[in-house]
Amino acid sequence: MERTFSTDLLAKDGQQVSIAGWLHHQRRLARVTFALIRDAKGIAQVVIEDDRIREQVGAMVPETVLVVVGTAVRTEQAPGGVEIHAPEFRVLSAPTEPPPFELRRPRLNAQLPTLLDNAALAQRHPRHKAITRIAAASVRGFRSTLDSLGFTEIHTPKIVGSATETGANVFEVDYFGRPAYLAQSPQFYKQMMVGALERVYEVGPVFRAEPHNTARHLAQYTSLDVEMGFIDDQSDVMAVLRQVLSGMVREVAHRCPHDLEVVDLELPEVPVDIPSIHFSVAQVMIEEATGNQVVGEPDLSPSDERWLGQWALREHGSDFVFVDGYPMVKRPFYTHPDPERPEFSNSFDLLFRGMELVTGGQRLHRYDEYLEALSEVDLVPLDGYLATFRHGMPPHGGFAIGLERWMARIVGAENVREVTLFPRDLTRLTP
Amino acid sequence: MERTFSTDLLAKDGQQVSIAGWLHHQRRLARVTFALIRDAKGIAQVVIEDDRIREQVGAMVPETVLVVVGTAVRTEQAPGGVEIHAPEFRVLSAPTEPPPFELRRPRLNAQLPTLLDNAALAQRHPRHKAITRIAAASVRGFRSTLDSLGFTEIHTPKIVGSATETGANVFEVDYFGRPAYLAQSPQFYKQMMVGALERVYEVGPVFRAEPHNTARHLAQYTSLDVEMGFIDDQSDVMAVLRQVLSGMVREVAHRCPHDLEVVDLELPEVPVDIPSIHFSVAQVMIEEATGNQVVGEPDLSPSDERWLGQWALREHGSDFVFVDGYPMVKRPFYTHPDPERPEFSNSFDLLFRGMELVTGGQRLHRYDEYLEALSEVDLVPLDGYLATFRHGMPPHGGFAIGLERWMARIVGAENVREVTLFPRDLTRLTP
Repeated sequence: MERTFSTDLLAKDGQQVSIAGWLHHQRRLARVTFALIRDAKGIAQVVIEDDRIREQVGAMVPETVLVVVGTAVRTEQAPGGVEIHAPEFRVLSAPTEPPPFELRRPRLNAQLPTLLDNAALAQRHPRHKAITRIAAASVRGFRSTLDSLGFTEIHTPKIVGSATETGANVFEVDYFGRPAYLAQSPQFYKQMMVGALERVYEVGPVFRAEPHNTARHLAQYTSLDVEMGFIDDQSDVMAVLRQVLSGMVREVAHRCPHDLEVVDLELPEVPVDIPSIHFSVAQVMIEEATGNQVVGEPDLSPSDERWLGQWALREHGSDFVFVDGYPMVKRPFYTHPDPERPEFSNSFDLLFRGMELVTGGQRLHRYDEYLEALSEVDLVPLDGYLATFRHGMPPHGGFAIGLERWMARIVGAENVREVTLFPRDLTRLTP
Repeated sequence: MERTFSTDLLAKDGQQVSIAGWLHHQRRLARVTFALIRDAKGIAQVVIEDDRIREQVGAMVPETVLVVVGTAVRTEQAPGGVEIHAPEFRVLSAPTEPPPFELRRPRLNAQLPTLLDNAALAQRHPRHKAITRIAAASVRGFRSTLDSLGFTEIHTPKIVGSATETGANVFEVDYFGRPAYLAQSPQFYKQMMVGALERVYEVGPVFRAEPHNTARHLAQYTSLDVEMGFIDDQSDVMAVLRQVLSGMVREVAHRCPHDLEVVDLELPEVPVDIPSIHFSVAQVMIEEATGNQVVGEPDLSPSDERWLGQWALREHGSDFVFVDGYPMVKRPFYTHPDPERPEFSNSFDLLFRGMELVTGGQRLHRYDEYLEALSEVDLVPLDGYLATFRHGMPPHGGFAIGLERWMARIVGAENVREVTLFPRDLTRLTP
């Protein structure tokens, strides 16, 4: 008999059905046992009255893999409005030990390190599955928006010959006896590909040898990278970023209504016009409002960002706010200066609920500008990158969204590890 | 004025337009200069009669980045049936040196090492751009087919704590002072996630420290990985693989008609029933037909595969043929044996035009089966993986498609490096 998913049972009221999944939990009352069977999509309740079968199921540990054949019966008080009566059970696979935590709890009742040590098991929990599906829908929305805007997906090297992009926090690889490094971002390659396809994106792993274990940093994360040519300035990039975020939210809303309920998540609204404020204006506003001396600082502090998040919500009803024109001193070498005020840059951060979510901006595009910006650096390892600019590049720019940070923010997770399948950090290399 | 792409000019016949792109080539005749402007989508012909502008453009080297404003004029003999008259040129960025090969040639006229040394420039060639877009459409078809079949996309660690999946050809990473390794595949993680989401896929880089430079191998390639639970046997996996390939071909046909012309590529047809032959039967057929002694060999040779490719085309009119039931001795430890004939496996290869394109099969799913299969191996580094099977796993299986190998086969490239943006191999680590 063809398998029915738990979420499709209601449509089979009165019919003989076959379901399959994991024994999530069983409640044994005096004359009846309720068994909950968890599959990929949800949980089905099975009502067992036959003593022989109650005994059979009673001996099973949680996570036993089962096929259950019985009759679907519409029942108001059952979870999902349907349950299975007169069941027969067939065991596909029996666990050799019980789980170290109870998957049946609405929230897993264990400390984060325990959950991460048993990550594959923790991912079976309905809340975790919902988060993974919401992440997948977010990425799908990212891609489909960009596809519709004429962008092409690329795949670039993760092993690179030099550590020169930032110079710090790189992982070294033994590359056939030579030193090589794990790419910290596809920045150079996405710029190089603008010379060919004008508009490109990549979804892939990036690697940072972060020397501290914080709640926001991982040694590997998934970067959603975009780069586009023939822009006037960073405002063209910001406009695409707005469309991308809107597409991500829309795709999650469309594909994951049930998962949003499970996670109890209200999606943010992406305004048609995200409020935007220049870095220098933001500093004056913060200083005037708080009395803290911030004007002249080269960057915003976390409390500055929180203040701006509150301001955007209060004044513009927006969860999002662009801060534009960060000082050049704090931005990477390829950042394009503001032609009118060259101490400021044509680059921006997007804050979401008072925290940085995305960084982006316009890049340098002329070879001589790169030579000047890199005047104190050995250019030999950068030659493949710099050659691009010797052969004619248009004004261009882009941005990168960290998938795990995005997920942590919309789910309200305090630690990015809560929304990462198998996190990697200073101390964690397994599972 | 808003920019018009070269491919949209015909619709603007008689109108003032602005195009942008790279100076692809110029032909200077006695009284007129034809300039070809290449943008992301195609090439536009610009007709220059004004002597001042002929002189201005005559001084430009190929790859100069330009904005051209002029009048679109429908012209039968022009490429694309349209050209631009009475143009004005504005330089966005001037190259500092001419390209080392002529991008205007129908096929780049340089040796592969030269092209790879100048990969970012070579990728500007229309044929290369078409290949990159066909690859992107292939991956899009892969994902959308799987999305429609209830699969969830995942992102798994590329840095792993042990080199135990195959034990050979791994890259070592200095992980905060400890040895770690680059993942050779997401095999373990996709199986672990079947325990949660039942049906998962991943598109991501995998790493092989191949000690030889061959035309088929790369140190990093893009793997399209699939894994699914609650299967009866490998035939369920093969059915999904057929749908996926069909979806990939369909998406390319739909999205890239122009690119298919540029590459001069005829897409394969994926039959509704791909012919399938058991390994042992295939060997008997090959031995009878060729006189070569192959029965009893543990694997098929390249010439055996070619013979089967010809057989499938002759007898079934199919570019594809499944070879099922490979001997266990040649398959990885997690391979499920054929219950009827345990020296053979429930695993398969898919041959495309006589060459292996995909490997897949059913995996072991019971903990004791893993203990037996790994009886001579240190289990400690595998514990995170094996824990999955202690907690109940359904019968499952999957497959992996190498994106670069797929592209090389359908494009007819002799070397996978021809269809890889920035290849990595024994000797090549840049650009």
